[in-house]
Amino acid sequence: MRLSELGEFGLIDRIAKSAGATGARVICGIGDDCAVIESGAAGTALLVTTDLLIEGIHFRRETTAPRLLGRKILAANLSDVAAMGGAPHAFTVSLAAPRDLPVEWVEAVYEGIGERAAEAAACLVGGDTAASPGPIAISVTLLGECPTEEVIYRRGARPGDAIFVTGSPGESAAGLALLAAESAGNLDTAALSPEARADFDHLRSRHLDPEPRLHAGRALAARRRATALIDLSDGVAADLAHVLTRSDVGARLQAERLPLSGALCRACEHLALDPIDLALGGGEDYELLFSAGADLDEKVLSHALGLAVTRIGVITDRAGELLVLDPSGRERPLRQPGFEHFRP
Amino acid sequence: MRLSELGEFGLIDRIAKSAGATGARVICGIGDDCAVIESGAAGTALLVTTDLLIEGIHFRRETTAPRLLGRKILAANLSDVAAMGGAPHAFTVSLAAPRDLPVEWVEAVYEGIGERAAEAAACLVGGDTAASPGPIAISVTLLGECPTEEVIYRRGARPGDAIFVTGSPGESAAGLALLAAESAGNLDTAALSPEARADFDHLRSRHLDPEPRLHAGRALAARRRATALIDLSDGVAADLAHVLTRSDVGARLQAERLPLSGALCRACEHLALDPIDLALGGGEDYELLFSAGADLDEKVLSHALGLAVTRIGVITDRAGELLVLDPSGRERPLRQPGFEHFRP
Repeated sequence: MRLSELGEFGLIDRIAKSAGATGARVICGIGDDCAVIESGAAGTALLVTTDLLIEGIHFRRETTAPRLLGRKILAANLSDVAAMGGAPHAFTVSLAAPRDLPVEWVEAVYEGIGERAAEAAACLVGGDTAASPGPIAISVTLLGECPTEEVIYRRGARPGDAIFVTGSPGESAAGLALLAAESAGNLDTAALSPEARADFDHLRSRHLDPEPRLHAGRALAARRRATALIDLSDGVAADLAHVLTRSDVGARLQAERLPLSGALCRACEHLALDPIDLALGGGEDYELLFSAGADLDEKVLSHALGLAVTRIGVITDRAGELLVLDPSGRERPLRQPGFEHFRP
Repeated sequence: MRLSELGEFGLIDRIAKSAGATGARVICGIGDDCAVIESGAAGTALLVTTDLLIEGIHFRRETTAPRLLGRKILAANLSDVAAMGGAPHAFTVSLAAPRDLPVEWVEAVYEGIGERAAEAAACLVGGDTAASPGPIAISVTLLGECPTEEVIYRRGARPGDAIFVTGSPGESAAGLALLAAESAGNLDTAALSPEARADFDHLRSRHLDPEPRLHAGRALAARRRATALIDLSDGVAADLAHVLTRSDVGARLQAERLPLSGALCRACEHLALDPIDLALGGGEDYELLFSAGADLDEKVLSHALGLAVTRIGVITDRAGELLVLDPSGRERPLRQPGFEHFRP
C-alpha cells in the first residue's frame, strides 16, 4: 500500500497504535495540538509540539520573504501551545538546505524566528543543520508549559456546550487568494482605491504574518471554563471536526453567526468568492475555536481574552455529525474539506 | 555568500550569535550535545536534542533496512542524552515523504524507532507528517532529564585531566567500509572464513545498529568525576576537538593507547586500511569520550560504567591544539577531518 491510499490521518492512526505513548508520565500523546507530559514540577505540565516544513509544499522561496517565513513558522508552533492554554518556553530549529543557498536567506529566516520568539518570550536553544540536494526542510519543536489542571484538550466538548471562535476566520485564506490573483496578473493593486488597498494590506498580513493567540489561550485556560480548545490551522469546519472526533460529539453551526470581517467580505466580492466558504474551509488563521458552557457571554469572554469572541454554534450528541445551517435553517454543504497530506 | 562558503559550523555560530538563547531558564543553549533547561522541578534539568535526517545524505533507501534505520535514528538522539549524563524521557518524530512511498516502509521505520524507545524507556508523544516530492526527511526531537548538578558539559575539561573513551571506536567505520566493499563487489562474504564472517557481522552491526551508552553516561554523571563528556558521532579527533574548543584547552593523544578491537584490526588488514585512522576519523560509533581527574583508574571506571574504558591521552593548556603521538613520540598527522555539512 502507498501513503496516498492511507492518507495522513490513516498514517497517524497506525503510528499512534503501533508506537504511541504509554509512559506513566505521558498525560496526552498523539492526537492534540501538543503532547502533554508531567514535567516533574508539581502541578505543571510540559507541552511539546513540532512541525516539519518542506519548500514547495508549505512555502515557496520565490513568493515568501524569508523573514516573514521565519515569523510564520514559529507562529504556527506558538499557536499550538496557545491551543492547549499554555505559555511557550524554548524551541529548536533544524534546517536542511542546498549548499548554494545564500546565507542571507537563512539568516533572514532565523531573524524572523528570533523576532517572533522575543515577542513570545521563547528561547532558541538548539537545532541541527545539514546539507541536502533540496527542497529546503525546516523543522521546529517548541516546548511550553501550563498548570496541569488548566490544560484544555480537544476531547472535552459536551452536548449543549456553545461553540466560540476568536477574531475573524477566513481572512488568511482571503489574503492568500488576493496574493494569488496579484501574482497571476488578475489583480492590479496600483488601481485599487485607498480603502481596498488597506483591506488588501490587512488580509495579506493576516496570511503572511499571523498572530498566535497566546494571551487569549492562557486567559481561557486560567478561567477554566472552556471544555475543548483547538487552533484554526485548516479552517473552522476541519478543525471543529477534530474536536468532534476526539470528544465523540457533533455540532451545529449557524453560518450567519460566523464573524466575517468587512475586509473579508469586500475582498470576496472583488474575487467572486463566498466569505463563508473561506471562514469554514480556509486555513492558517491561527484563531482559537473552543467549546464552553452555553451560559458564557460573548462580551465577557471578549474582554477576558482581549479579542473579539463570537458564539457560532452548539455541540450536539450526534457523534461525528457537523451541520452548518443557513439562516433559513437549511443545511449548507461543506465545499472545502480540510487539507490532508499524502492524498492525491 | 553561499552556505558552502560559510560551512556548517560557521552557520551555527551565526545563528547562535543572532538568535541564541538568553532566557533566564536556559542553562546551556546551542553548542553541546543537548540544550539544558531548568525543568521547573527543583534540582532537575530538562535536556533537549534534535536531528534532521535527509534521504541520500544521512541514509539511502536502497541499502538501509527501514527497521534498522528507525533504530539508528533514535539511537543517535539517545546517545546525545547519554553524552550529558541524562536519562531519555519522551520524543517526537516528523516525516516528510513522497505519496507513492510504501506504507510498509514507513511502518518498519516506526517499528525500529519503537523498539529502541522501549529499550530506553522513552515514549513517542507526537510528531508531524507531510507529503513531499522527496527526498524523505525525518526529524526527531528527544527530551531527557538529569539532576542539574550532575549534567556533564563539553566545556569543563582542565589541563592535566586524563582523556578516556568507552568501547572500541573505529568499528562503525570499519563496518561501513566492509558494507561498501561488499556492495561494490570487492568483498565476497561467501568466501570468508567463519572467523572473518563473525568479524564482519559484528562490525556491520556496530555500524547499522549502534548502541547508545545510556547506562554508562548516567553512571558517569552520578559519580560526578568527569569534567567534560561528548559522544563519538564524528570520530575521536573531531569530537575531542569540540571538547577542546568549548573548554579552551588542548590535548595530547597516544595512538598506541587507542582501544582497537581485534575485529577492527583484522578487517582493516583485509581492506588495507589503518585502524588508527578509523578510530580517530571514523564516525557513528556512539561511544563516550570524557575527561576526568588523572587519578581515576580504568578498571574501576570500566566496572562502574559496565563498559571497557580506556585512557587515551591527556588534556593540555595549549588551547585548541590536538596532538596525536605515535609510540616513538612523533606527531601523527590527522588524515580524516570530521565531516562538516555544506562544505563542497
